[in-house]
Amino acid sequence: MADDPDGLLARARRLDAEDPLARYRDRFVINDPDTVYLDGNSLGRLPKATRDRLRQVIDVEWGVDLIRGWDRWIELGRQAGDVIGELVGAEPGEVTLSDSTSVNLYKLAAAAVAARPGRRVVLTDDDNFPTDQYLLQGLAEAGGLDLRVLPTDLDRGVRLADVRAALDGDVALVCLSHVAYRSGAVADLAGITAATHEAGALALWDLSHSAGSVPVGLGAAGVDLATGCTYKHLNGGPGAPAFLYVRRDLQAGLRQPIWGWFGQADQFSMAGRYEPADGIERFLVGTPGVLGGYAALEGARLSAEAGIEAIAAKARALTGYLIELADAWLVPLGFRLASPREDAHRGAHVTLHHGQAWQVCQALKEAGVIPDFRTPDRLRLGVAPLYTSFGELHVAMSRLRGIVSAGRHERFSTRRSRVT
Amino acid sequence: MADDPDGLLARARRLDAEDPLARYRDRFVINDPDTVYLDGNSLGRLPKATRDRLRQVIDVEWGVDLIRGWDRWIELGRQAGDVIGELVGAEPGEVTLSDSTSVNLYKLAAAAVAARPGRRVVLTDDDNFPTDQYLLQGLAEAGGLDLRVLPTDLDRGVRLADVRAALDGDVALVCLSHVAYRSGAVADLAGITAATHEAGALALWDLSHSAGSVPVGLGAAGVDLATGCTYKHLNGGPGAPAFLYVRRDLQAGLRQPIWGWFGQADQFSMAGRYEPADGIERFLVGTPGVLGGYAALEGARLSAEAGIEAIAAKARALTGYLIELADAWLVPLGFRLASPREDAHRGAHVTLHHGQAWQVCQALKEAGVIPDFRTPDRLRLGVAPLYTSFGELHVAMSRLRGIVSAGRHERFSTRRSRVT
Repeated sequence: MADDPDGLLARARRLDAEDPLARYRDRFVINDPDTVYLDGNSLGRLPKATRDRLRQVIDVEWGVDLIRGWDRWIELGRQAGDVIGELVGAEPGEVTLSDSTSVNLYKLAAAAVAARPGRRVVLTDDDNFPTDQYLLQGLAEAGGLDLRVLPTDLDRGVRLADVRAALDGDVALVCLSHVAYRSGAVADLAGITAATHEAGALALWDLSHSAGSVPVGLGAAGVDLATGCTYKHLNGGPGAPAFLYVRRDLQAGLRQPIWGWFGQADQFSMAGRYEPADGIERFLVGTPGVLGGYAALEGARLSAEAGIEAIAAKARALTGYLIELADAWLVPLGFRLASPREDAHRGAHVTLHHGQAWQVCQALKEAGVIPDFRTPDRLRLGVAPLYTSFGELHVAMSRLRGIVSAGRHERFSTRRSRVT
Repeated sequence: MADDPDGLLARARRLDAEDPLARYRDRFVINDPDTVYLDGNSLGRLPKATRDRLRQVIDVEWGVDLIRGWDRWIELGRQAGDVIGELVGAEPGEVTLSDSTSVNLYKLAAAAVAARPGRRVVLTDDDNFPTDQYLLQGLAEAGGLDLRVLPTDLDRGVRLADVRAALDGDVALVCLSHVAYRSGAVADLAGITAATHEAGALALWDLSHSAGSVPVGLGAAGVDLATGCTYKHLNGGPGAPAFLYVRRDLQAGLRQPIWGWFGQADQFSMAGRYEPADGIERFLVGTPGVLGGYAALEGARLSAEAGIEAIAAKARALTGYLIELADAWLVPLGFRLASPREDAHRGAHVTLHHGQAWQVCQALKEAGVIPDFRTPDRLRLGVAPLYTSFGELHVAMSRLRGIVSAGRHERFSTRRSRVT
């Protein structure tokens, strides 16, 4: 093709034609076909099933059933938890919806530290998401703990050897992100969990960027604790409740510090004394968000239907193709890859360094491509295997190449961002 | 009237005809006009404006704007907080939406105790809502505090004299409910807050049953801290986010223990070290629920439009009329009032003792009247001045009288409840 001298457009067309997940795009509300949305790992698109389910919940279950809706809503946490559990390799009854990722990190980290009396160190790394670091700082300050922060190559992610070297008999808890929010690097969850257990500590994983994008295998790796948001790859909508996981054999022995009535053994006895529930419910606190919860359920169902292995395979293909385009078109313009190059080490986004990444971001948005900026110089491009096509990536990267070649990003001067 | 020997139906008709809030009923989705809904203090009805706003948020702001929706959503907490603030007597910037009531109680109580070093007592009463008691038990156990629980006449509510007698120089925090969830008794918020301050302690009020039903006057009373749910009298929908209040001059000096990125001074700097925001935002934690938040906003707006004084006046008239009906029809059948008789001491619900209250509740639901049961022998009847009519109360109490006169509740045998 005359307008495809490097054959990359033809490749996109072939990959789209062969894509077994292509039909899932039609399951989403897409009113803006000219926009290339590469920020589904901040906020996933709206599934049509979610739109319909929310109308039912609002108009009928709230509007007509009123308080009787709780006969159904009370099951929602476990119901959605079991679907998410399937995606992250957990058993039924090990996952539920609850609060925000941040509040869950607090509850789980506090419970873990309390379960390792005498050990005073919490281990994390400097590539962990800010809220995780803040939460651990707060816990450390309140509990007289030592927060050990591993320095990490932010383009490569945390390494097992470095974690192993930092583990000793003082460590109560290791808290890390499975897929790094900057680079998309996938940590060695199984290896790090095993090393953590060898040292007698507990492992708490933040799955915000991995749930719904890569297989997690919580059960196979024997992970102790995990949490993550549902509004990224699970397409649960803005501010939807987070999920939390506690390995079944640990549930009865752990106590979390925020004692609310949804964690009480017999909630409606209105008893005077708190007695935690037996199962995963002991990690709940207050009345859960029902609208966001149903959105999380429907979003997760769509991913479960497609299957996490198929999703991850397409994510690898999409990000691999993105890297090909970047190598061919953007490296000559001053971009540099800020993500792992190996298939097995990438989640569902690719990040590029560029000295004017913020300005490039603004210009891209104007051109109908929605990426994300990560301080100080990163352009983050997320793919969503359920609705991103290879053709879209070709369009987006063509626009990006055009902008930077012509210097059209130069007129943006200040810098500001506001997303996850 | 032949079928109105005691003139109570004629009274209902006159009161409805004179009701300045009658037109607000049409602002709600009501598809079940034969149902008398007396549980709006567990879950308020669906406002039409909320249904429409949620469609906009889901279909356009999420579905089309996608991540750009956060430019608007980021303001939601304060926006809704200011409307709720107007209803509870707070200034702009003193209230925001956040988490659940339970999580907020934890954050605020922990911050208060930390602000009174050396004082080791938290004071509450046995009429406080269970989740409040559980939260305080957890904090007391973790922090080596003494939880002092005042015994209360559960039909009359907590009394200033009893609180005053229990206050001393060891008390760091007094945590009580403004309107009691069983009896609807209104506590002397201003008097108890003043006594708390005289003793050098901080006052934390749970406003779940008072926000949107009675004037609260947080600012006038100099209340330190407060929280409450939005799904009762504020009509915010199932599991909508709670609100929290911190008096402005206290905000900068208090530190809450759950350090998340929404409480960080410069959230998107992704800085390594937590620095709490200046204003009410320092009491936030993780990503807030957007759908529930907009429902809370629209619900609160409707109450603010009607005005809290008009709402409270109608609540007094409705509950007064309910007591009249109970005196005339139900006391002879073995019911006994479990709420204060004085207008000024009642919130927006009336509770009745009956030995078979649970069975009566089930029979009422079958007859199209939705009340609530409170263990062990209480029938709770909530009124919602924006949509409850006097005529409905006459219908509901007639049905109740008919059921109990004929013994139609006797066939229900077991006992179970599941609401707030």
